[in-house]
Amino acid sequence: MLNFIYNTPTKVVFGRGAEAQAGAELKARGATRVLLHFGGGSVRRSGLLDKVEASLREAGLSYVELGGVAPNPKLSLVREGIETCKREKVDFVLAVGGGSVIDSAKAIAHGYAEGRDPWEYISGGEPPKKTTPFGTVLTLAAAGSEMSNSCVITDEVTHLKRGLTTELNRPLVSFLNPENTFTVSKFQTGCGIVDTMMHTMERYFTPDTDTDLTDRLAEGLLVAVRDAGRIAIAHPEDYEARATLMWASSLSHNTLTGCGHNHTFTVHKLEHDFSGLHDHIAHGAGLSVLFPAWAKAVYRQDVRKFAQLAVRVWGCEMDFDHPERTALQGIRAMQAYFGEIGMPVTMGGLGITPADYEDVVNLTTANGTKCAPSCYGEMDKARILEIYRIAEQPV
Amino acid sequence: MLNFIYNTPTKVVFGRGAEAQAGAELKARGATRVLLHFGGGSVRRSGLLDKVEASLREAGLSYVELGGVAPNPKLSLVREGIETCKREKVDFVLAVGGGSVIDSAKAIAHGYAEGRDPWEYISGGEPPKKTTPFGTVLTLAAAGSEMSNSCVITDEVTHLKRGLTTELNRPLVSFLNPENTFTVSKFQTGCGIVDTMMHTMERYFTPDTDTDLTDRLAEGLLVAVRDAGRIAIAHPEDYEARATLMWASSLSHNTLTGCGHNHTFTVHKLEHDFSGLHDHIAHGAGLSVLFPAWAKAVYRQDVRKFAQLAVRVWGCEMDFDHPERTALQGIRAMQAYFGEIGMPVTMGGLGITPADYEDVVNLTTANGTKCAPSCYGEMDKARILEIYRIAEQPV
Repeated sequence: MLNFIYNTPTKVVFGRGAEAQAGAELKARGATRVLLHFGGGSVRRSGLLDKVEASLREAGLSYVELGGVAPNPKLSLVREGIETCKREKVDFVLAVGGGSVIDSAKAIAHGYAEGRDPWEYISGGEPPKKTTPFGTVLTLAAAGSEMSNSCVITDEVTHLKRGLTTELNRPLVSFLNPENTFTVSKFQTGCGIVDTMMHTMERYFTPDTDTDLTDRLAEGLLVAVRDAGRIAIAHPEDYEARATLMWASSLSHNTLTGCGHNHTFTVHKLEHDFSGLHDHIAHGAGLSVLFPAWAKAVYRQDVRKFAQLAVRVWGCEMDFDHPERTALQGIRAMQAYFGEIGMPVTMGGLGITPADYEDVVNLTTANGTKCAPSCYGEMDKARILEIYRIAEQPV
Repeated sequence: MLNFIYNTPTKVVFGRGAEAQAGAELKARGATRVLLHFGGGSVRRSGLLDKVEASLREAGLSYVELGGVAPNPKLSLVREGIETCKREKVDFVLAVGGGSVIDSAKAIAHGYAEGRDPWEYISGGEPPKKTTPFGTVLTLAAAGSEMSNSCVITDEVTHLKRGLTTELNRPLVSFLNPENTFTVSKFQTGCGIVDTMMHTMERYFTPDTDTDLTDRLAEGLLVAVRDAGRIAIAHPEDYEARATLMWASSLSHNTLTGCGHNHTFTVHKLEHDFSGLHDHIAHGAGLSVLFPAWAKAVYRQDVRKFAQLAVRVWGCEMDFDHPERTALQGIRAMQAYFGEIGMPVTMGGLGITPADYEDVVNLTTANGTKCAPSCYGEMDKARILEIYRIAEQPV
């Protein structure tokens, strides 16, 4: 077990009616004027925005609205949000939405406090040292941004999609009401299931050993998500399944499932450049295609761990004579599960053809001059292209 | 899944050499003069106190020492600690020790900030509204006090052992170096294993259903502790086993293993009056005797959940015709495990005879006028005495 820091300061208010506590919780944190940041009109149509606004008013807080966040949240709207905060003298940013809305809100909160252009710190420059108090009302179980230290923003001009990792990214408070995910489509539910599983599996698969407690927690989470995922896809208004997916999305990406491991998030890195370059690609769908292909490319370097997942999460019987067969069987079972919940599992299903590869891999590798981060050997342009090719058909 | 609040603000610095970061972390939280609170001389003999003091000095912080905390921490020392804080104008309390030291430090931190006698809020009076910044350097994997919202203090005059539950009890920062537990005796290691398991199992066993994610995490933690426990007892300097036990002790009692459940901590309540009245009884040893007896008394009311534990944690095969047999088999396997790691499993092993029952049960039930908290039917004096009698021999 490697040394680690565990820092999850976000207070989670979980359950039916959670959003009704927004006013009191924000007020307790000194908020007086709130930027309500959201996406399209769905949070208005569903009545959620009304409930949040009523809660703020009841606590004597005023607010200003800024909607319009799209998937793969855009730098231009972050800049607009910062200007809104300045103009309206906001002292708390509250995201009402999924991962894109929350990430946009995080970037706004930092930029408003820092007083400089957000792309500086998102694109790898001097990281922010302070932020504005912010929280979330979650509507999508997927990104885990409601507790995570991550934030991903896309510069729509250059198509660069970049992530900022900092403890400042952790919200002060998050309101998680599973009912607010009842209307999420089957496809988006599937994307969320895959994304949640990936946040755990990208931490799980490292050559580090002796992380039994972390492994057991990760496997428990994956099993719970596996079963709840099937139920939520079939019965979108099953509260218990939605609750499991929602809480798992937070725990999967808040550090818990990676304590004592190094991790490189290789497949996230590979995927970001697909969805960054191709607006029609959902992050979860890209991961669904790329993860099994990546796993097939690397599993022989860590048969032990891939076999462990196969046995403990995917119900495979251990082949002690040929553990590599168990390992591969587990990867196939995982891919079959992704297919079962309606996710694409091949490049074709993603709408990508071999003619698209070069642009994406060049973005990932800076035209072949850099490797992607990886804990299973160097991930250079040739190896990444091999993964793309594996993804042309089921593993 | 019931609504819940998840609030774990404690930053955990985990791993080899963690205590060397104490100075910097405390300074970052505004500390200038620290009360170092500890138990007997073991932290001085081991050199740990020197390391912590060197780290504080290096960061430019001054400190004052107050040792002498004994198991079942005493009210009188809490009062002395509050006086020391006032006299020395302390602005941070740092516990260096196990659960007793940490609980004593928590009570001191609250009393110093509140300016009133600590027994008022510990014994059930008006709860504290503020506290002094405090942290922990952990030396014993057991109580989970390094992240929990609990604090248990004993009034040595009346033998009343009482717990205070408040979010103010959560430390700002905890330093967890598994090496600092290498010298813990086999017996105390066993007590810690039982206590950690109990913090999870007292949350696990409730009639609430549909808490699959929380159950899976709990079961994963129990399996990891089960295996690491055997190793740590046999090889006290096995870093990985000690690390698993240490991290599990924190996660077991920080809320994670109970999200979405109600819980009553019945067996903790029953045990507190044994160790409160009999100084020779270690809390973990008392739990080891009482939990299986309690389980045998109640399992027919929740065969489903006891069978689930038996199958998933204790490796029993499910008897679908007679699930109650599986449930009981699991309780027996758990008790056998406690015996294997050197814990007492009967009243005799605890040094208690039937002649002692009346005093203890009268303390628990206020002379038979009150029931113990319980989620499996009323726990009155007669039923508690039945549990004591079950504990006279292995279940």
